[in-house]
Amino acid sequence: MHTLNVDLGDRSYPIFIGSDVIDTAQLTPYIKGSQVMIVTNETIAPLYLDQLRGMLASFEVDSVVLPDGEAYKDLEHLNLIYDALLEARHNRTTTLIALGGGVVGDMTGFAAASYQRGVNFIQIPTTLLSQVDSSVGGKTGVNHPRGKNMIGAFYQPQAVLADISVFSTLPDRELSAGLAEVIKYGLIYDVQFFEWLEENMPALIARDPKALSYAVQRSCEIKAEVVAQDEREAGIRAWLNLGHTFGHAIETHQGYGNWLHGEAVAAGTVQALQLSCELDWITERDVARATELLAAANLPIEPPENMSEKDFLELMAVDKKVINGELRLVLLKALGEATVTSDYPASSLSKVLNRSR
Amino acid sequence: MHTLNVDLGDRSYPIFIGSDVIDTAQLTPYIKGSQVMIVTNETIAPLYLDQLRGMLASFEVDSVVLPDGEAYKDLEHLNLIYDALLEARHNRTTTLIALGGGVVGDMTGFAAASYQRGVNFIQIPTTLLSQVDSSVGGKTGVNHPRGKNMIGAFYQPQAVLADISVFSTLPDRELSAGLAEVIKYGLIYDVQFFEWLEENMPALIARDPKALSYAVQRSCEIKAEVVAQDEREAGIRAWLNLGHTFGHAIETHQGYGNWLHGEAVAAGTVQALQLSCELDWITERDVARATELLAAANLPIEPPENMSEKDFLELMAVDKKVINGELRLVLLKALGEATVTSDYPASSLSKVLNRSR
Repeated sequence: MHTLNVDLGDRSYPIFIGSDVIDTAQLTPYIKGSQVMIVTNETIAPLYLDQLRGMLASFEVDSVVLPDGEAYKDLEHLNLIYDALLEARHNRTTTLIALGGGVVGDMTGFAAASYQRGVNFIQIPTTLLSQVDSSVGGKTGVNHPRGKNMIGAFYQPQAVLADISVFSTLPDRELSAGLAEVIKYGLIYDVQFFEWLEENMPALIARDPKALSYAVQRSCEIKAEVVAQDEREAGIRAWLNLGHTFGHAIETHQGYGNWLHGEAVAAGTVQALQLSCELDWITERDVARATELLAAANLPIEPPENMSEKDFLELMAVDKKVINGELRLVLLKALGEATVTSDYPASSLSKVLNRSR
Repeated sequence: MHTLNVDLGDRSYPIFIGSDVIDTAQLTPYIKGSQVMIVTNETIAPLYLDQLRGMLASFEVDSVVLPDGEAYKDLEHLNLIYDALLEARHNRTTTLIALGGGVVGDMTGFAAASYQRGVNFIQIPTTLLSQVDSSVGGKTGVNHPRGKNMIGAFYQPQAVLADISVFSTLPDRELSAGLAEVIKYGLIYDVQFFEWLEENMPALIARDPKALSYAVQRSCEIKAEVVAQDEREAGIRAWLNLGHTFGHAIETHQGYGNWLHGEAVAAGTVQALQLSCELDWITERDVARATELLAAANLPIEPPENMSEKDFLELMAVDKKVINGELRLVLLKALGEATVTSDYPASSLSKVLNRSR
């Protein structure tokens, strides 16, 4: 087991990474009161809920089971968590445990941030995507019909248990979606890791535990380093959004849940790299290598056919990275080095948005 | 004009208190972007919205008008604020302005805390209650059908404009409700201020500007001192809840908005003092003085006739001050000195809850 500390002063917390890290000894030190509320979904509950309950025999444990999917990441379903907490009279010392993927993690984190103005929570991410993305950095929240993650808070967990043995029950499509974010870390921050991924993609797709464990660890390390430098996203934390402004537009246009987040990010990453290439910051060869790696991870490398340039521009205009009317995008200066800029010709963006049509 | 600084490190902010403090020069330094969203209600909008808009001519100003009353302080109406922000494409640099009483302030504050994971806000409290209570301390949030203020965040404004000239449009009943909290500050923290209130209650009821200005200033000073010592309510901040555990039970039982918050707190304060007297911490004479002062402010001094001991106990059991099953109450050790305790005989509490029947 590898322990990674996310260094955020008095909000620091550990991430435990490896096989079979979910157990009583790992959980108990991070539960301060007598009450625990497990938040999970319909897919994960039959697989792991009883097992987790069994590890918490010395606590008063309740649970709430949400429907599975990004389509339910909204205020209405968030309210089901509040209902469960109030129904079972959970007080300020309660601990919420998020048992599920990114949707469960984001919703549980925001419920913890806002229930009685803030209670503790622990994350047990059950997908590759949530282990490498939402488990680090404290972004919590829900979607609004007009935009993704528009309602939320920065709120840190007490601990994260990233157990790679849960991948045994993860569908192929979700494994690939997680690899989109893993590849992103190489692209924005670490060209050696990008090259490691080029070599090890077959092992990752074959679910080799050693390869997966290293991919999770290195991804979390990179995210932790970036977040520790910039918790509130005033600067380099925005790099983590490579491909996300395009990707969010795809997710919103297609309806939440039809494209998985990682799939939309993959297609969006290709667009961001194409724009970086239009600006002569990276080469066509760089774009081709990244595109091939995403394709090797069985990810889409083109946006949906039914999305026009106008669709993209309208949906991207509501992105959180729009400041005073300017659309700031994360682009690459080189493989392994990102930048945030609104200084690109509209014609270059237009060319990219029309490219696959 | 009096300026009071609420000292919370990098979350410090000023409160401007006096006549005619609402103006462009007072607002502009606290608006960082180009967008402003004024949140107000149906009662206040016709009185002050156009005037405030006029002061913000150099900004892009939108507004959202909520229905008036505690009954609408819920997730559904909070969502109207998010809708308005997203409809008008407000970005992370937007500033929300709460123009209204405590309900508008609490909802706007929580909308600011959670919109795009946190934007700026300014408070313009238009009731005595909100000037002396919710304008200091950063408690924001909404109610849940099962409990008051169960969903929210600690989130500080950029500035508070407490303009006593707005009291010219305040109904008598709301003025009295605010005085309940003013009296509370004397009871928990400052016996001289309590005595000043005994002498000056006729002037306050007659809306003498000098008396009101001093009452607002001293109340905010006391709250600011308490909050600066204990922002997250680990200790003495709980003193501010004198009468509130009983009072919240009354509000919930009667339906939000039927008893004004200050009215419920007044009746609840008498109960808290009666219990303090049962414990021999304060004298019957102390209870009588406080009860007379509340009555002189035209406030109820008895709980609703249709509330049983059982009603109180059930509703108080869900209070945020319940820790591991123990009901902690704010009681008085003396006039001007509060304490928080769960160490009282159940029989004494029972006696108080049955007293007026």
